[in-house]
Amino acid sequence: MAKTPKIIIIGAGFGGVKMVKSLHKKPVEVLLIDRNNYHNFQPLMYQVATGGLEPGNIGYPVRRIFRKYKNVSFRMAEVLSIDIQKNKISTSIGEMDYDYLVMASGSENNFFNFERVKHKLLTLKSLPDALQIRNWIFQNLERALAENRKESLEEIMNIAIVGGGPAGIELAGALAEMKKYVIPKEFPELELSRMSLNLYQSGPKLLAAMSEEASEKTLEYLKEMGVNVFLNTRVSDYKNNAIVLEDGSHFITNTVIWTAGVKGSPIAGFPEEVILRGNRLSVNKFNQVIGIENVFAIGDVAAHSSIDALNGLPMLAPVAQQQGKHLAKNILRHLKNEPMQPFQYRNKGAMATIGRKKAVVDLPNFNFQGGFAWFVWMFVHVFSLVGFRDKTVTLIDWVVSYFSYDQPLGMILRSGEFKPGPAKKEIKEIEDV
Amino acid sequence: MAKTPKIIIIGAGFGGVKMVKSLHKKPVEVLLIDRNNYHNFQPLMYQVATGGLEPGNIGYPVRRIFRKYKNVSFRMAEVLSIDIQKNKISTSIGEMDYDYLVMASGSENNFFNFERVKHKLLTLKSLPDALQIRNWIFQNLERALAENRKESLEEIMNIAIVGGGPAGIELAGALAEMKKYVIPKEFPELELSRMSLNLYQSGPKLLAAMSEEASEKTLEYLKEMGVNVFLNTRVSDYKNNAIVLEDGSHFITNTVIWTAGVKGSPIAGFPEEVILRGNRLSVNKFNQVIGIENVFAIGDVAAHSSIDALNGLPMLAPVAQQQGKHLAKNILRHLKNEPMQPFQYRNKGAMATIGRKKAVVDLPNFNFQGGFAWFVWMFVHVFSLVGFRDKTVTLIDWVVSYFSYDQPLGMILRSGEFKPGPAKKEIKEIEDV
Repeated sequence: MAKTPKIIIIGAGFGGVKMVKSLHKKPVEVLLIDRNNYHNFQPLMYQVATGGLEPGNIGYPVRRIFRKYKNVSFRMAEVLSIDIQKNKISTSIGEMDYDYLVMASGSENNFFNFERVKHKLLTLKSLPDALQIRNWIFQNLERALAENRKESLEEIMNIAIVGGGPAGIELAGALAEMKKYVIPKEFPELELSRMSLNLYQSGPKLLAAMSEEASEKTLEYLKEMGVNVFLNTRVSDYKNNAIVLEDGSHFITNTVIWTAGVKGSPIAGFPEEVILRGNRLSVNKFNQVIGIENVFAIGDVAAHSSIDALNGLPMLAPVAQQQGKHLAKNILRHLKNEPMQPFQYRNKGAMATIGRKKAVVDLPNFNFQGGFAWFVWMFVHVFSLVGFRDKTVTLIDWVVSYFSYDQPLGMILRSGEFKPGPAKKEIKEIEDV
Repeated sequence: MAKTPKIIIIGAGFGGVKMVKSLHKKPVEVLLIDRNNYHNFQPLMYQVATGGLEPGNIGYPVRRIFRKYKNVSFRMAEVLSIDIQKNKISTSIGEMDYDYLVMASGSENNFFNFERVKHKLLTLKSLPDALQIRNWIFQNLERALAENRKESLEEIMNIAIVGGGPAGIELAGALAEMKKYVIPKEFPELELSRMSLNLYQSGPKLLAAMSEEASEKTLEYLKEMGVNVFLNTRVSDYKNNAIVLEDGSHFITNTVIWTAGVKGSPIAGFPEEVILRGNRLSVNKFNQVIGIENVFAIGDVAAHSSIDALNGLPMLAPVAQQQGKHLAKNILRHLKNEPMQPFQYRNKGAMATIGRKKAVVDLPNFNFQGGFAWFVWMFVHVFSLVGFRDKTVTLIDWVVSYFSYDQPLGMILRSGEFKPGPAKKEIKEIEDV
């Protein structure tokens, strides 16, 4: 009997998970690798950051998803490099051979001209990032009441968000609601007039990838909610605890949330010519990395070349999912020596929520905004979560918030690292891994 | 108009929170201080450690509890010392004056002869501790599958629990269920025979504070569930990644969970003679610290002197709560120059759960164990949680686990500290505070 072909998929995001599901019970052995042992639902991460949801609501252990998949195994590991000649990858837990390799490793923050000060920025690309934002903001509010505080109130109460894409505007909206509904109840001693929320967008419109109506309505909502939106405004530096704009003006704050751009997360070992601008891997219409027969890329890390009609696909969950599903079929075809089919993207639309009864929805032929859009947004998001528990608990949290005008969660939960003890051991462990 | 008397309460645990509640709308100004911004429900912490509950289920922001209490304020701060002469405390966020001070600062781990190796032990006194245990155990299981692992399987799969009190036995039970129901499903590749759960108790019985029946039944349950229970066994050291017993025998493991003892958490500035063995503050029958008119202590940090009938009260939530409620009344009496009333403890019983349909309940005149005890335990615990959200979500998690034989949560969620960036800033920040 011939050896079962082995497919290694790197990354348990939307693309990787969808692809594994599509390979269930197929005559292949699948190994899924991720540096975390969970899949997370990125679109709701901003709610973890603002105390609306717990990490457990939107994260789901990978092993649990694939428990019943006999031909699938999972390893938690950091992938270090690829050896294309030997069909082998090197990881933090050892070397692994593949017959087919799929890069579904997603994207990471691109700090552009802020690279030098990135350690002072908060980001929103992972659950720990989200918890970090939550802890930081609540801690600032607590500190604002200290007798011996050295910072000005503005420095610790102001918040700057850089980037007017979905993450930026959703976060801005959630923070504006927190300022309006939650802080006055929980910190009655604080002068809220000393707190400004500024959102900086380099281009002329918010949600650049969405319709004109969505973009305008979002701007209107945010202004209505008290967010200072700066369009066509480039941030040039962060120094002396202040955001500096290109025109030289300053905004003092120790809370800068960076949502201004991402780049692909490939690994070492790819030939230079397949790595495009933004660190993405150049793929053909079959999502095959250019020039490498058995290596593919899907989702944020994949970029269709400029001669391809697929060039410029947005870095969104549906793209990754559709590519994952399609690639699963193509690899099965390839195994049977059948010709692969070109990928085609079916645009199902996009949506974003700004606040209570304020959302924008773009469907392929129809756009709408407002309260109904908000219900549609909630419905779609709850049902997209993995598993009964995540769906139910999220629904409860939303219903409770809706009626109470509250965020259910506000604990500043520092990790074990703040105490002496096993935490340090763990840090070392992770660094070793 | 005379100045409103100011009561500072240090610690938002069971005693502190109950006392503040009892002072609602009374003619006093209350300032509650805690190093965390949340109250947590300690009795269920072991379920956070084993992936049964999220921190958000059992923790509740302090400000939210007291939102509507006009005479109460809260500060998140570390209390550093007391100046008894000047009626003043010094904290990480400045100095504060009081008319009455209440120490409700609880207890911390007592490592006894393990002080030297305490950085290698896991503990269960806080929510970050609990998350640390969860991360550590799940990470060990993932590491057990690594190709390039240096440790033996036993070293990373074995677990030692030191201490046979409620925390130790509840944790042992939960881990035994995880081993039986969850690990085989999620890590089918692991040889479970290489995993031992050992529980060490220095004395002759488990749950020493409970009835003989409870204690025996607990031992029976744990053995039935596959836990190796060692009674009358003192651990003498931890070296070369192994627990060493007094007879010289070894148990190899990198996971040692220490639940073997606590000591009071007083602050600097108390006269030496009021600090008793185990770092607890010596109080009279009014919970007044001996010799200090306007300073009181309740809960774990308070110890009634040996001539007092209250000597030897257990360090349990009901004691702290009853003392908090009683002291609130006494301080109000003291303000009106009325004589204070001595505290009397009403023992309402105790309970512990070992596993599915396995619990032990001691009532003052009646003990029972088994499935009904387990339902009583769940009922009492769900209804003791603070707030609608915590009650509902915990109930859902328990119902789901009951039917699925599963833990709902299994994410290894490392904090932001593992990445470069704001995390480090936060550590520094916290250290500054």
